[in-house]
Amino acid sequence: MFLALPCITALIYREESGWYFAAVMVVCLLVGLIAKKFFRPKSTVIFAKEGLVAVALCWVVASAVGALPFTLSREIPSYVDALFEMISGFTTTGSSILTDVEAMSHCARFWRSFAHWLGGMGILVFVMAIMPLGGSYSMYLMKAESPGPAVGKLVPKARHTAMLLYQIYIFLTIVQIVLLLLAGMPMFDTLTITFGTAGTGGFAILNSSCADYTTLQQAIITVFMILFGINFNVYFLIYAKKIKQGLRCEEMRVYLGVIAAAIILITINTRGMFQSLFQTVHHAAFQVASIITTTGYATTNFDLWPEFSKMILVLLMFIGACAGSTGGGIKVSRCIVLVKSIRNELFYALHPRSVHNIELEGHKVDKSMLLAIDRFFFVYILIFAFSVLIVSLDNFDFMTNFTAVATTLNNVGPGLSLVGPTGNFHMFSDLSKFVMMFDMLAGRLEVIPMLVLFSPFMWKK
Amino acid sequence: MFLALPCITALIYREESGWYFAAVMVVCLLVGLIAKKFFRPKSTVIFAKEGLVAVALCWVVASAVGALPFTLSREIPSYVDALFEMISGFTTTGSSILTDVEAMSHCARFWRSFAHWLGGMGILVFVMAIMPLGGSYSMYLMKAESPGPAVGKLVPKARHTAMLLYQIYIFLTIVQIVLLLLAGMPMFDTLTITFGTAGTGGFAILNSSCADYTTLQQAIITVFMILFGINFNVYFLIYAKKIKQGLRCEEMRVYLGVIAAAIILITINTRGMFQSLFQTVHHAAFQVASIITTTGYATTNFDLWPEFSKMILVLLMFIGACAGSTGGGIKVSRCIVLVKSIRNELFYALHPRSVHNIELEGHKVDKSMLLAIDRFFFVYILIFAFSVLIVSLDNFDFMTNFTAVATTLNNVGPGLSLVGPTGNFHMFSDLSKFVMMFDMLAGRLEVIPMLVLFSPFMWKK
Repeated sequence: MFLALPCITALIYREESGWYFAAVMVVCLLVGLIAKKFFRPKSTVIFAKEGLVAVALCWVVASAVGALPFTLSREIPSYVDALFEMISGFTTTGSSILTDVEAMSHCARFWRSFAHWLGGMGILVFVMAIMPLGGSYSMYLMKAESPGPAVGKLVPKARHTAMLLYQIYIFLTIVQIVLLLLAGMPMFDTLTITFGTAGTGGFAILNSSCADYTTLQQAIITVFMILFGINFNVYFLIYAKKIKQGLRCEEMRVYLGVIAAAIILITINTRGMFQSLFQTVHHAAFQVASIITTTGYATTNFDLWPEFSKMILVLLMFIGACAGSTGGGIKVSRCIVLVKSIRNELFYALHPRSVHNIELEGHKVDKSMLLAIDRFFFVYILIFAFSVLIVSLDNFDFMTNFTAVATTLNNVGPGLSLVGPTGNFHMFSDLSKFVMMFDMLAGRLEVIPMLVLFSPFMWKK
Repeated sequence: MFLALPCITALIYREESGWYFAAVMVVCLLVGLIAKKFFRPKSTVIFAKEGLVAVALCWVVASAVGALPFTLSREIPSYVDALFEMISGFTTTGSSILTDVEAMSHCARFWRSFAHWLGGMGILVFVMAIMPLGGSYSMYLMKAESPGPAVGKLVPKARHTAMLLYQIYIFLTIVQIVLLLLAGMPMFDTLTITFGTAGTGGFAILNSSCADYTTLQQAIITVFMILFGINFNVYFLIYAKKIKQGLRCEEMRVYLGVIAAAIILITINTRGMFQSLFQTVHHAAFQVASIITTTGYATTNFDLWPEFSKMILVLLMFIGACAGSTGGGIKVSRCIVLVKSIRNELFYALHPRSVHNIELEGHKVDKSMLLAIDRFFFVYILIFAFSVLIVSLDNFDFMTNFTAVATTLNNVGPGLSLVGPTGNFHMFSDLSKFVMMFDMLAGRLEVIPMLVLFSPFMWKK
């Protein structure tokens, strides 16, 4: 169904590549119909195990199929590269192996950007929103696909939650489209850039990313990147007329505070690099918003910034956006809990008999949640470290290896040095590309589903 | 008392610098006697809080005093540099601000290396071993100073444990001295290099570190670096004739396994860089032993190795040696628990109702211990990240900043790039040096005592 969109784009621009999208769509439809006819599951109940595996496999298969038109049309001759590009799309990473994105057909570029929009809120969450699935157990699907330590149902039924999320998502998307059109951006740019902003993806359709847009257009993108990085709970509360409660959201406040602090520090550090203070703040704000929300657009080559500013961006990559948003990274709420737990540990070291609870959004964080967050953090760092180790076999410089893995694992897009805003990922070996594909999926699905897929427990009876 | 040793060295080599060591020693003695006479504590009982602060302050004061002779004798004109060098000595780091260590007097070099030996097992543990302190509460002192997640008393009394540890320590030190002398190393080199090996420090007395020693001498150092990185529990069990139980030590086995794996991988990766396979294995083994035990000697400039080998060394820096050894880093036992906990988490994700315990050395790791290890890991990474951020203000390259902080926080010694085996730390700003001094102390004292010293809880009534 989604493949119809690039087909329509191809019709408008009269592009040959569209035929390949159409072909893949038809084959998918046939395979789907045959499968539906001949393979009926014995049970449709979805538990934790099924939820995790279904999500992990769905993302791998969607990427594998979505990459086919790129290779068939010879726009990306290597299938490994096409797969990398497609996984980067669905996981809302935005890291590209393309050396010249402007040489691509409109339909291919539209498909890449639309993958961001779809992947941002979740492929299966979308399916859930439009199809009736096996009752309340489908919550396990949503849990496995949605970012954040605790997935709350906004309303009692998982399906209605999914619909509500998509309604908010579509509403915000339309507002951005309207504003960008009003600011004079061409239709094709508006749609693709908005898809990338909404999904916090970052694929641009120009080689200069967002550097050639006007300051107003860039400012609109800045604001919407920040908006899409906020926990969608806040929007739900505002929608439900609980505006005060929504604005009290602790995670949002910390998130906005970190953004403000980063903009100030980078503005001070990069003073003199831009024509005016306004331009310095503008570019600092755009880059900070782009990196912390893990979008990955750029208006300037921040690889030329001083080391201090670059380190701030690397830190922001890991912090990431709010849980329950379309952004990636470790997530602000997890960072809040981790930092609060240090305070706790110090207090405990001084007063070994004391008991002191950690609170988030006014609720006590129980021990098992705390352990889960700790585990997430450790696995994250471990996957990160081993990925850097394997990628370093290609013998590029440390900054390239480190930020290439950081940017893919956190679903950001650009890194620094060779993978900076003006660089790309084409020069890596296939092994490194597979490692980064794994990292992108692990980052987007928050590690556990991907690890489960490769764990021996899974396949034992 | 310890300052008498450089004085004796100065007598032997007829060096003027010795007077400054003597002067500082006399002043310390006077201050100590006056303090003992006029300031009597109301209570001598040591609880957690007092233990933590006493240890943190003791290390800071010992370094501040120990650095004085360097500056007074103008051998290290800047006191900040002298303090850096001394903290690097006591914390068994071995990072140096000296551009030419061979220009230093023998007594100054002896003092630097002896600081390693003393800091390795613990300054306060030594004091406890020779002085009767406030009963069983002195356990809190030992807890705060000894590395590892769980400090076991080998024997019921803390003081006897301290004595036993130092007996094992002195015995191994003497064996290494005898072997190096038999292998033809000069007396002064033998003593200083052995102090550095025993404390897993890494200050060398030659600009070439250990590159100019014979292969046999280097091999002896390799073996003893590995031995001093093993949990001293193992030696205690062997001493207590429980040899089988000692060799079953899970931590030691993993530690030796990691060393073997790293040597094999680096040997494959650096093939062709040395004259023969034997030389390749020899240099790989020396460097791996030096880095994982956080000693920091070098026989070759590993900054010239391929990125993959360098990344292995960086990983080894963080893993570190066994708990209960003189080495630094996160410690092998903590890594074991963390990795095992992932297995647990995956199993739990698949079977939400299951209960599965983590075991270390055959004992169950309880939840509070697990949380403490998690907390340690997170604080460690957080201190690391913020240190890199501040150090990057000096605008050196990423590899320099990253490994300079990694090597000081993990008490290793050399890093890569500008702080590689042929480089040093003199070019950093005072701010960066203070950050790294904090990191060295935080690494050696395992974070909590240093954080407590700077925490507001500490100073509130």
